Amino acid sequence: MEQTLPRFGYTPLTQDGLARLGEIVTPRGTIRTPAFMPVGTVATVKALYPEQVRQAGADILLANTYHLMLRPGAERVARLGGLHKFMRWDGPILTDSGGFQVMSLSKIRKITEEGVAFQSHIDGSRHMLSPERSIEIQSLLGADIQMQFDECIELPAETKEVARAMELSLRWAERSKRAFERFASPGQALFGIVQGGIDPSLRRRSAEELVGLDLPGYAIGGLAVGEGHEAMIATLESTLPFLPSGKPRYLMGVGTPLDLIESVARGVDMFDCVMPTRNGRHGYAFTWGGVLNLKNAKHAEDLTPIDVLGGCPAARDYSRAYVHHLIRSGEYLGAMILSWINTTFYQELMAGMREAIAQGRFSTWAQETKARIMVRG
Amino acid sequence: MEQTLPRFGYTPLTQDGLARLGEIVTPRGTIRTPAFMPVGTVATVKALYPEQVRQAGADILLANTYHLMLRPGAERVARLGGLHKFMRWDGPILTDSGGFQVMSLSKIRKITEEGVAFQSHIDGSRHMLSPERSIEIQSLLGADIQMQFDECIELPAETKEVARAMELSLRWAERSKRAFERFASPGQALFGIVQGGIDPSLRRRSAEELVGLDLPGYAIGGLAVGEGHEAMIATLESTLPFLPSGKPRYLMGVGTPLDLIESVARGVDMFDCVMPTRNGRHGYAFTWGGVLNLKNAKHAEDLTPIDVLGGCPAARDYSRAYVHHLIRSGEYLGAMILSWINTTFYQELMAGMREAIAQGRFSTWAQETKARIMVRG
Repeated sequence: MEQTLPRFGYTPLTQDGLARLGEIVTPRGTIRTPAFMPVGTVATVKALYPEQVRQAGADILLANTYHLMLRPGAERVARLGGLHKFMRWDGPILTDSGGFQVMSLSKIRKITEEGVAFQSHIDGSRHMLSPERSIEIQSLLGADIQMQFDECIELPAETKEVARAMELSLRWAERSKRAFERFASPGQALFGIVQGGIDPSLRRRSAEELVGLDLPGYAIGGLAVGEGHEAMIATLESTLPFLPSGKPRYLMGVGTPLDLIESVARGVDMFDCVMPTRNGRHGYAFTWGGVLNLKNAKHAEDLTPIDVLGGCPAARDYSRAYVHHLIRSGEYLGAMILSWINTTFYQELMAGMREAIAQGRFSTWAQETKARIMVRG
Repeated sequence: MEQTLPRFGYTPLTQDGLARLGEIVTPRGTIRTPAFMPVGTVATVKALYPEQVRQAGADILLANTYHLMLRPGAERVARLGGLHKFMRWDGPILTDSGGFQVMSLSKIRKITEEGVAFQSHIDGSRHMLSPERSIEIQSLLGADIQMQFDECIELPAETKEVARAMELSLRWAERSKRAFERFASPGQALFGIVQGGIDPSLRRRSAEELVGLDLPGYAIGGLAVGEGHEAMIATLESTLPFLPSGKPRYLMGVGTPLDLIESVARGVDMFDCVMPTRNGRHGYAFTWGGVLNLKNAKHAEDLTPIDVLGGCPAARDYSRAYVHHLIRSGEYLGAMILSWINTTFYQELMAGMREAIAQGRFSTWAQETKARIMVRG
């Protein structure tokens, strides 16, 4: 039976400047690129029902290896039939490797050639993540796209330290590939992660070495960790030329609508970020008329809908005054409404980019869209 | 135009023993009784979209005067077009008088003949609630059913103290009625609240005096504040005979499914309680096979749906293992799923009671239902 499933594969459809329109085919469905993956950290996109994530237009979502290995545990998820069944999401799922979270969230960690020993941020229990264990966990979860285990350091950092982590990540990429061949199922794919901070020569070396491994996709990691928008764009520009055009390119953990537009303009195909839901919980709405801070007192008696141009029902149904009240009161419904609106906005933004690329007017679209959505209200 | 709206009125349809089937007609729709009112404390039933509350089967919901007067403020809600528009609920709304919350939530309060001076639990700001101000607020909110201002004391208490508060509440009932005539709109109704603790003679006096005011409905207040199920039932039995059969009877703040069944058996028509949503947030599911504590480790690998017999889509869609994980992880979706399931369960329980009364088999239904739902899992 499994032989009849479509294999993993990326098809470039058309290009407009450097912006790419494409499709990633997986056994669980097709991902239209450029794609934004909502983040379902612990097997839920925060404050959304899975039906809402699908209706928003998402083809794929991301889940976090670090969180899920600690709770409920990868072996448990496997016994329960895998992550898709567990969280009621039948489309593709990408899991990260845990490399980023183990550095940003866990306590007392020790990095060796073997991997990272750390303590859980939940209960202090001791764990080990290595390339082999990371891939084993991602396979137990049933991830359609799996990420190599890498070391992700905080920027700014000394070049020597960035180089050391990048070289270690290269060795871990090879081990990840061998582990993937052992643990993964047909139709699943392993992506490599280009590291090297904001140093072009390190990025180039990382990219070239990874391309030598002939993986089905490549991510740009280690950005969105404090380097700023300009440095991110510069790093992208110095890295992307060394990645093959026939494979999807994924910019990890990014970003703002502006980040997405500028990155797509340079040839990125995939993104993930907690921003739509996290900013929603904090009272921010992404709208086609700009960003709204609903906590702001000026919205207290504003009966205007959140976004009359938004495709999310909640964007048109609920008034700014009501959501202001809900957010000020710390009510669930405030987070539910804004997370839903923002998740939908991000998908509409990607759909807008795909349409503009298809029509060969990405540059004009990007100019107009930036002018509309960069307003703060 | 307003003259053409249906007036407020209660129609008893049939009776089975003391259990009553009826209808309350309001300009905003008909309330099928016995009815359970979901609680929308600060203008939202916690963790539910208003569409879900309606789909669960609720004809009416309750909102809290105390909370809404502090935030967003009654005058503000009025300027925004009233509570129904504000929270997107076009059915009837009942507001309490603030009497209960001002005692249980606010800080530094001074009770005089005039009313209660208190400080907000949110920001310490000073406020005054009197019968006149309570009714004015409820009218500004646009409540279809308004409650008299009363003093609600904690039980157990000395009989002398219970009597003093009851007598004060009687005088406040008269003032509430005069204020209602001044502030309310056509089609709205004012209910009196019987007080008197668990003392039958005080309850009788309170009921008889209030009936003398010829109000369109009567509530039994001051229960569900620590007296226990048996004392509550005994108090009901000694109070209900003094309330007119042609008016709705509302037991405030109650309660468990057992409380509801036993109270309907004695002639109560209306209820409200935070239990479906609060217990949901704490990991409890009311199901047709008993109460589940989803935090319990025994559910960690249980792929059974929460309630295969439940009418809520979430009761059939999500596994116990997944909701266990969500609740343990403190995720929004856990509270969203269980609040939705429990709100639906309570409405199904009331629908079951109404059907059983209509068919003249309430007693049998009650026996069977209690045996099913009192199990703990």
